[in-house]
Amino acid sequence: MLVDTQDLTAFCADIFRGAGVPAEVAGVVADSLVYADLRGVGSHGVLRTEIYLRRAAEGMVDPHAEVRIERDGGSTLLVDGSNNFGAWVGVVAVDHAIARAKQTGACVVGVRRSNHFGTAAYFVERAIRQGCAAMVMSNASQTMAVTGGMTPFVGTNPVAFGFPTGREAPFILDMATSVVAKGKILAKAKLGGSIPEGWAIDVDGNPTTDAQAAVAGTVLPLGGAKGSGLSMVIDILSGVLTGAGYGPSIKSMYDNWEEPQDVGHFMLVVDIDRFLPLSAFTDRLADYIDTLKRQPRAPGVDEILHAGEPEFRLQSAASASGLDLPDPLVADLKSMGARYGLRWPEG
Amino acid sequence: MLVDTQDLTAFCADIFRGAGVPAEVAGVVADSLVYADLRGVGSHGVLRTEIYLRRAAEGMVDPHAEVRIERDGGSTLLVDGSNNFGAWVGVVAVDHAIARAKQTGACVVGVRRSNHFGTAAYFVERAIRQGCAAMVMSNASQTMAVTGGMTPFVGTNPVAFGFPTGREAPFILDMATSVVAKGKILAKAKLGGSIPEGWAIDVDGNPTTDAQAAVAGTVLPLGGAKGSGLSMVIDILSGVLTGAGYGPSIKSMYDNWEEPQDVGHFMLVVDIDRFLPLSAFTDRLADYIDTLKRQPRAPGVDEILHAGEPEFRLQSAASASGLDLPDPLVADLKSMGARYGLRWPEG
Ligand SMILES: NC(=O)c1ccc[n+]([C@@H]2O[C@H](COP(=O)([O-])OP(=O)(O)OC[C@H]3O[C@@H](n4cnc5c(N)ncnc54)[C@H](O)[C@@H]3O)[C@@H](O)[C@H]2O)c1
Ligand SMILES: NC(=O)c1ccc[n+]([C@@H]2O[C@H](COP(=O)([O-])OP(=O)(O)OC[C@H]3O[C@@H](n4cnc5c(N)ncnc54)[C@H](O)[C@@H]3O)[C@@H](O)[C@H]2O)c1
Repeated sequence: MLVDTQDLTAFCADIFRGAGVPAEVAGVVADSLVYADLRGVGSHGVLRTEIYLRRAAEGMVDPHAEVRIERDGGSTLLVDGSNNFGAWVGVVAVDHAIARAKQTGACVVGVRRSNHFGTAAYFVERAIRQGCAAMVMSNASQTMAVTGGMTPFVGTNPVAFGFPTGREAPFILDMATSVVAKGKILAKAKLGGSIPEGWAIDVDGNPTTDAQAAVAGTVLPLGGAKGSGLSMVIDILSGVLTGAGYGPSIKSMYDNWEEPQDVGHFMLVVDIDRFLPLSAFTDRLADYIDTLKRQPRAPGVDEILHAGEPEFRLQSAASASGLDLPDPLVADLKSMGARYGLRWPEG
Repeated sequence: MLVDTQDLTAFCADIFRGAGVPAEVAGVVADSLVYADLRGVGSHGVLRTEIYLRRAAEGMVDPHAEVRIERDGGSTLLVDGSNNFGAWVGVVAVDHAIARAKQTGACVVGVRRSNHFGTAAYFVERAIRQGCAAMVMSNASQTMAVTGGMTPFVGTNPVAFGFPTGREAPFILDMATSVVAKGKILAKAKLGGSIPEGWAIDVDGNPTTDAQAAVAGTVLPLGGAKGSGLSMVIDILSGVLTGAGYGPSIKSMYDNWEEPQDVGHFMLVVDIDRFLPLSAFTDRLADYIDTLKRQPRAPGVDEILHAGEPEFRLQSAASASGLDLPDPLVADLKSMGARYGLRWPEG
């Protein structure tokens, strides 16, 4: 059953407001979750409503806290997320970075005391809409082994880069630093299937192609020591530099009910106009993309896509048709809404 | 036969000077090449002396040109490399970025009209020595296919990130965006061996484990669409944004003798002190590294290393013992030196 995305966003925002979250914060968190669903990143979509609310209810997240600039270095800002929702903290931080980049050309923002911020592309898009290029990183609680290790040391720390293209679909590379999301391994395990070598190790640290063993084990970084190093770079910039948690000191959103997560983010926003007029940049990037699409294609490939294009196509289609959420998720949302007297937006 | 590294640097610098390169430029280029050799990155070491000199001799590189700041946006600089040697251009650019970051907290430098700059870590190290964190990227001429393609579209565009650790070995992640360097495939092919699936595709765009077929074919990006996207992000920041070449418009250092390469670079330097005192940062990073090293180790692993540590160990050992260069390379260097009446520095 398809649900209209604006109705869904309003419904989720109303749930958050019902739970006492200020309207502005509720609106941003709901919008970021639906954005992820639209782009096929359901793992970071409205599915998270429940856990986000539980953390707020348990006092692990403070939706009323003010996100503050703690230190201002001119083109650097240290932001204290004050333990508000990650999506809200991220929006406040990237908006500061955009405003500052418009003044000085570029701004680096480090964020501490934040929480899981969902899909990194959401923050990059805000910068793109203002004619900026952006890089957004976040650390996360431990789920991934690093090169030489056999148990989780870092999160699947994501990094996203984005650019305006002057066309509908922006160029957005948004990726976890693991080979694949753990969700994909869980899906294979459910079907009793196997996974390609290199995705995960078992509990003894040995490579495995058995999806069950991989679920019990640990996901691996993409590209061996390269992805492993990149995940640690993200941890250092987001956590070590900002004063947030890093490695083992980031608390699990699901398992730790004693302390806030203390996630950190790191963002760079660059005002493209300082290098060349925005229209010249988008002309050059459009030429780059057109040239890309004219390349000889590998066997079985119909069209070469740029990063962000697969997600943009899903987003456009779902925005038009409505979003197809799994039934159990709809049931959960309905019952959450019912607590606050909200009616599910039927087609 | 081992050669003292200072002697080798002086010898190479003298070759460049003999060929008419200004002393300061010659010193930096030679130093960057020997740095790569010391760190086990022989592919970007003194081996390149010959091709660098040939390009200068053919008028494809101008060692006398002044590297200029073309646009100054406050915390952004657009640098015109004026077609000087890449290592020299890179040093001038990163030094500007460091100076500016000390004023405003962070600086982004885009560089156009440059050339192959060797090992990216070289520039990152300069920032680290000034208490800064740095990110350095470069595009390169086409050698790698992107996701969906089957022929080279981008270079194996490198990116490096670095941080001071307060200890001898800095944390430096410096990586090509390919699964492995083409040099490693060439080495396997010479021995008649096979390569793991995923390293390369053959001329028809099909995956291959035949090293010979891979040499004729094309190297692949690390991590599929992730490394592919990352290599394009580097191309966009280094080339599209700066006005340098990108994708097919970057000329090959080896095959194009009509035009300069027009390589672009992109650098971010952040003054750590704007976030927390440098000593607090290095304390936190040292704790991160110590924690990393205490993790349970995968079977067969003696010690977990951080990025940059393998290269630092090689560098320390070779600095002490002297550098062991292959005989044919020594013979080439000797004959190049002989043109300018230079004597090879025998032990
Ligand atoms: N907040 C957190 O803690 C956290 C942690 C991990 C991941 N995430 C988020 O999870 C999401 C999913 O990450 P992922 O790594 O699974 O993404 P993914 O592997 O599906 O995609 C990665 C990137 O590759 C591009 N891509 C994929 N196929 C392509 C093709 N055929 N041609 C061209 N480009 C292609 C996509 O556009 C995307 O930019 C991201 O939004 C990320 O920010 C968040
Ligand atoms: N200028 C150019 O056009 C160009 C193009 C491509 C590459 N390069 C240079 O080539 C060099 C080599 O690149 P590469 O990708 O082959 O490097 P690599 O694969 O040897 O190493 C990549 C990174 O992984 C780290 N690493 C490796 N093994 C590790 C381990 N066991 N534990 C922890 N960390 C580990 C290294 O310290 C390094 O930072 C780099 O200096 C790069 O800048 C330059």
